[in-house]
Amino acid sequence: MTLPRYAYLGPAGTFTEAALRVMAPEGTAEHLPMVDVPSALGAVRSGEADYAVVAIENSVEGGVTATLDTLAEGEPLVILGEVVLSISFELVARPGTRIEDVARVSAHSHGLNQCRRWIAENLPGALQVPASSNAAAAVALADGSAEFDAALAPPGIGESLGLEVLVSGVSDRASSMTRFVRIGRPGELPEPTGADKTTLVVHLPSDRSGALLQMLEQFSARGVNLSRIESRPRGDRPGEYSFSMDAMGHVAEARVAEALIGLKRTCPVVLFLGSYPAFHGEVTPVEPETTDESFAEATAWVAALRDGRA
Amino acid sequence: MTLPRYAYLGPAGTFTEAALRVMAPEGTAEHLPMVDVPSALGAVRSGEADYAVVAIENSVEGGVTATLDTLAEGEPLVILGEVVLSISFELVARPGTRIEDVARVSAHSHGLNQCRRWIAENLPGALQVPASSNAAAAVALADGSAEFDAALAPPGIGESLGLEVLVSGVSDRASSMTRFVRIGRPGELPEPTGADKTTLVVHLPSDRSGALLQMLEQFSARGVNLSRIESRPRGDRPGEYSFSMDAMGHVAEARVAEALIGLKRTCPVVLFLGSYPAFHGEVTPVEPETTDESFAEATAWVAALRDGRA
Amino acid sequence: MTLPRYAYLGPAGTFTEAALRVMAPEGTAEHLPMVDVPSALGAVRSGEADYAVVAIENSVEGGVTATLDTLAEGEPLVILGEVVLSISFELVARPGTRIEDVARVSAHSHGLNQCRRWIAENLPGALQVPASSNAAAAVALADGSAEFDAALAPPGIGESLGLEVLVSGVSDRASSMTRFVRIGRPGELPEPTGADKTTLVVHLPSDRSGALLQMLEQFSARGVNLSRIESRPRGDRPGEYSFSMDAMGHVAEARVAEALIGLKRTCPVVLFLGSYPAFHGEVTPVEPETTDESFAEATAWVAALRDGRA
Amino acid sequence: MTLPRYAYLGPAGTFTEAALRVMAPEGTAEHLPMVDVPSALGAVRSGEADYAVVAIENSVEGGVTATLDTLAEGEPLVILGEVVLSISFELVARPGTRIEDVARVSAHSHGLNQCRRWIAENLPGALQVPASSNAAAAVALADGSAEFDAALAPPGIGESLGLEVLVSGVSDRASSMTRFVRIGRPGELPEPTGADKTTLVVHLPSDRSGALLQMLEQFSARGVNLSRIESRPRGDRPGEYSFSMDAMGHVAEARVAEALIGLKRTCPVVLFLGSYPAFHGEVTPVEPETTDESFAEATAWVAALRDGRA
Repeated sequence: MTLPRYAYLGPAGTFTEAALRVMAPEGTAEHLPMVDVPSALGAVRSGEADYAVVAIENSVEGGVTATLDTLAEGEPLVILGEVVLSISFELVARPGTRIEDVARVSAHSHGLNQCRRWIAENLPGALQVPASSNAAAAVALADGSAEFDAALAPPGIGESLGLEVLVSGVSDRASSMTRFVRIGRPGELPEPTGADKTTLVVHLPSDRSGALLQMLEQFSARGVNLSRIESRPRGDRPGEYSFSMDAMGHVAEARVAEALIGLKRTCPVVLFLGSYPAFHGEVTPVEPETTDESFAEATAWVAALRDGRA
Repeated sequence: MTLPRYAYLGPAGTFTEAALRVMAPEGTAEHLPMVDVPSALGAVRSGEADYAVVAIENSVEGGVTATLDTLAEGEPLVILGEVVLSISFELVARPGTRIEDVARVSAHSHGLNQCRRWIAENLPGALQVPASSNAAAAVALADGSAEFDAALAPPGIGESLGLEVLVSGVSDRASSMTRFVRIGRPGELPEPTGADKTTLVVHLPSDRSGALLQMLEQFSARGVNLSRIESRPRGDRPGEYSFSMDAMGHVAEARVAEALIGLKRTCPVVLFLGSYPAFHGEVTPVEPETTDESFAEATAWVAALRDGRA
Repeated sequence: MTLPRYAYLGPAGTFTEAALRVMAPEGTAEHLPMVDVPSALGAVRSGEADYAVVAIENSVEGGVTATLDTLAEGEPLVILGEVVLSISFELVARPGTRIEDVARVSAHSHGLNQCRRWIAENLPGALQVPASSNAAAAVALADGSAEFDAALAPPGIGESLGLEVLVSGVSDRASSMTRFVRIGRPGELPEPTGADKTTLVVHLPSDRSGALLQMLEQFSARGVNLSRIESRPRGDRPGEYSFSMDAMGHVAEARVAEALIGLKRTCPVVLFLGSYPAFHGEVTPVEPETTDESFAEATAWVAALRDGRA
Repeated sequence: MTLPRYAYLGPAGTFTEAALRVMAPEGTAEHLPMVDVPSALGAVRSGEADYAVVAIENSVEGGVTATLDTLAEGEPLVILGEVVLSISFELVARPGTRIEDVARVSAHSHGLNQCRRWIAENLPGALQVPASSNAAAAVALADGSAEFDAALAPPGIGESLGLEVLVSGVSDRASSMTRFVRIGRPGELPEPTGADKTTLVVHLPSDRSGALLQMLEQFSARGVNLSRIESRPRGDRPGEYSFSMDAMGHVAEARVAEALIGLKRTCPVVLFLGSYPAFHGEVTPVEPETTDESFAEATAWVAALRDGRA
């Protein structure tokens, strides 16, 4: 039996790998570590991998920008699922090290940023040494090549390398949630669950004032809410913007389909990046006037009017 | 051959009859004068007439309110066409009467209102005598039963009665246009011409603030403009309102059909009172994003997304 | 002591006089009957009267159109108060007449319309004879000049003329409410009560699509609801419309004042026709974000920002 | 004379330093390199620095997220100005190295991402070695500690270190613009220039559907456009979002001030992060109905209405 192949931002031990393990546990999938997000997505486009797992929001490693930009350019890819992980680190060191001995601490620069206040309070005066990845700093400690005394590492990796965990649950925010998505090629649309997201990239018509508001009215006129919106400057057109958005609903639902029809008519570019179950699993409330039944009844009524049957 | 039967607000000589003659000239139709607007519409509902012609906007006779209310209640009726007439009167009198002899002038009270400033300037001090219709005053002059010296009458009626036209083109406004509509039973939907109107009656959900704005967004999200809107207090529910509206477009057009689907979903009552050619004949401008082609393409795109083909 | 002088649509006995007696009982005011609505309003403009009382919505006599048009043109007038009356008629006749004897019935044509179903059910086959006013028909019965057997008259007038009331409470609708307003010259702005209306006439910019929606957003952005809106074709500009509206609130309230500032900036014509207590007396709900305090705090915050104090 | 002190993301040689040199050339300011964005902003808060220069959009180094989050939390800071730089790299190596000899290339991981396609096309098969900063890789080449053959470095740094520039203008996008801002403490509000931006952070009311749309209507009702909007998940409230936005205009302009008043009334949190000249210098078009004069006239008109003077 051939296992599905998953590309991800490696090496083993990253938070992305932790997300991957939630989505496709070892034994059920082949894991392919990649050096960066574009490589992971490129592997799906080329067929080298079946899926990729990458961070898309609030990342402490890899690049959200890289994810959004790489999705938006080139052969179509779609999001098939998501997980949201609470990100916290372990302070790990060689056995025998005490926390008061830590004069230099290392992690990926995103990880150092993420833990900045904790470091200031718990390791005052410690020198921060950026590493090329969150896992790499721990590896360097383990193999003796480190020029620092401790590392902030994703949970589990320190123990697996024979290091000592001095502190666990290190994070500046009580809940620093990072969102990861599973990406694949179009053709496989997850079934609607009632608790779904639809991710889109939209370019606005440039010659129209109030264009953003008019774009959002396409959603509100059908009772569709957004859970995320981000403007991104367009590299190819200075002064113009594209918008990356998550709508609460599935394209198989009439209200989302109608909103997309409205966008497609009125915006020069609309990219569909997938409809998939939301990790939180809370069913999206749907008003009586935006149910599929309501759309079907109203559509039948207008069809009757057109035939003179009303 | 049986001619189509047209009910209208009589007697012969009213402005409504003038509108009728534009829509269905004598020889092509049987004309059935009625005592009021509800009777004219009732004759269509009962099958006594095939069509009715009644004033629906800016009337100087009959009642716009009566028209709107009677259309909205009872068996469905639809508007099949409209004409807009420039209303002006003739000051008519028995032969030999001079304008300086006119001490008392008569017309329907709406007609007297309509010409009020003209009377003040041209017949200063004249007593105004309300008559039961604009035609009736002229008839009374002709048959000698009048207790007044002159009448303001629709054009033509004075001459046909052997009266003298002292002044023609009497009106307070340079262009006091009145709009008349042809009403029939559902089943016959006029072909779209590109210059059409769709007349609707809508009740708003009462428990929602901003309900009027949300209702209008159903039009604006599809690029449909309104040429008329009137709130009408609902007799059955004090404090609630219904809205009578003309949208610029035909239900056979996708943008109008989509707006109606949106209304039907979100408003407790939506009455369709017809799609028909606008009298002015000016083609409604349609933006590229609201053409039928644009709707068809966008709908096909979403259908492909749902099948995983995008 | 000089009593205030009130012009109204006469003669005595009309529904308008009934409204007048509610607003300014005899003994507290001098009542000046006028032949029509424009005359009543003209009397205020000329100084002949201090106030006028006229119907403005759902009238069974006088003309709503005449009221709206006459208010909108000429020297400014403002609405100072309103009453809403439940309109019903009495069927009156000369003593000794029985209802089964009534072969011909008279009233103003609006009154006949208003009671049309009642007549069809209770006086089947009776001929309807339009009179020049609802009171006039009863007067003609009393003085013996009537060519009909009974009249539909406002309550009380029949008895005062020595006629017999055959049926009272005649009306086609359980509650056919008519709204009357008290008009005066600017200078006297009623105190806000919390249950107020502000009446406006607005012309839309003609060269802008979605202009109606944008106009209404000026209200919704400040949480102001409308209780009435009517488009009126502009006699001077065919194809353009003015809008007559009642907003729920008083210009002395910040949310209404801000909405008016928005209208004034964006619409070519904005006529203020008064802020006055609503007859229903139900306090308009005001959201926390649209209270006067909320506006004052937010305005102070922005003033501080501008001074670099934030 | 004391020079103003500018904190920035160091070391010397970063793109942030290039932006700093545009805003405050050497000789006019003291430059204080910091290890990360939070440190740079913290230095302004603590008084250690007068200003900070940090990337805020499309960064290739430092973190946009770190900038937005650090601005939004803690003692108020405001943006006083911006520059937008076109980011490109130089491929630098020790003298004598030829491009075909480059088997390993280094830069900050953001820099490697930024140049990914160029590397794939021009250094096919080269191993990518992440460095802790874009400048650090060049420094390592110069001091001989590098385990790679070439570095992608900000323009100028290679030459200053005695390295050879093999290729200049290296970038994947024709114009990869990065936006940097100058941050200070409140108290100093730049003069409006007609081409200004106002940066805001807004939390939406959570209990209201369509809240995003209603928030944006506060801008559109005053003719204010946005040039940037980003939703950011709120660490403290899972499932809720804050919005970071740039509005086109200055708080000293009435239209922007009114929009801010509207936001302040309706949104639980509104942070003002400054009004400052836009780098592009293109004057923001202002419609006649949103000029300061238009606001002043309309405000005076309503004041007169309230006094009964209209």
